Amino acid sequence: MARTSSSPHVSRALRSPCPIAGALDLLGDRWTLLVIRDLLFYGKRRFAEFLASPEGISTNILAERLERLERCGLVERHRYLERPRREEYRLTRRGHDLLPVLRALIHWGKRHVPGVAQRPPAGVILHPRRPSTTRR
Amino acid sequence: MARTSSSPHVSRALRSPCPIAGALDLLGDRWTLLVIRDLLFYGKRRFAEFLASPEGISTNILAERLERLERCGLVERHRYLERPRREEYRLTRRGHDLLPVLRALIHWGKRHVPGVAQRPPAGVILHPRRPSTTRR
Repeated sequence: MARTSSSPHVSRALRSPCPIAGALDLLGDRWTLLVIRDLLFYGKRRFAEFLASPEGISTNILAERLERLERCGLVERHRYLERPRREEYRLTRRGHDLLPVLRALIHWGKRHVPGVAQRPPAGVILHPRRPSTTRR
Repeated sequence: MARTSSSPHVSRALRSPCPIAGALDLLGDRWTLLVIRDLLFYGKRRFAEFLASPEGISTNILAERLERLERCGLVERHRYLERPRREEYRLTRRGHDLLPVLRALIHWGKRHVPGVAQRPPAGVILHPRRPSTTRR
């Protein structure tokens, strides 16, 4: 079920008042933004889909990151089948608003990280639609 | 002394061809982009200055991150005094090019992380000048 709270808990103890530090408290690791990438640009929604991404995230890291993203209001979990229980994840507005961060990382990575792809792979969603949920 | 190699080693083993993953291999932690922030927006150059930032980075993490940033060509180390030996760090073009990433994080953090400052603190450099080094 989608959570409906309008004020999810993003960060309890800020390291400083700096918005960069605040954002990195949540996003500053090697995996979190890849899950956001999968949701935004690949339209992935299910645990097994994230798991299948080429970077090879482990099940426990993926579960922990999804749980954190949900707790912080960047994704919502939806149960689409009761028996067997099946859930999928969707970006909230708050999560979708990371699009400019990801675009800036793509731009920098293409320019400065040797060996990365210069063109988006086939099937990528170049212009992800903003979710229409009430959650930001 | 400034290194003059034009092709620094950024990433040996890419997790995937994805430029986001490539960028996060280098930047994906809670501290690296804060050091870049200090260089860009606060004009900090010295180890003790980074250490004094409000987030309280530890000396060993700071030393490791600076070493990595130098190895990957995002900062250059300059010795400005021989005895006692004193060094400072400067952003390269490659490092300066992270400005849009930091701006996007600031924008997202201000909007979505409760409690962070909505205005830049006094003394912040709002429009950092691009370095004129030969290194990108």
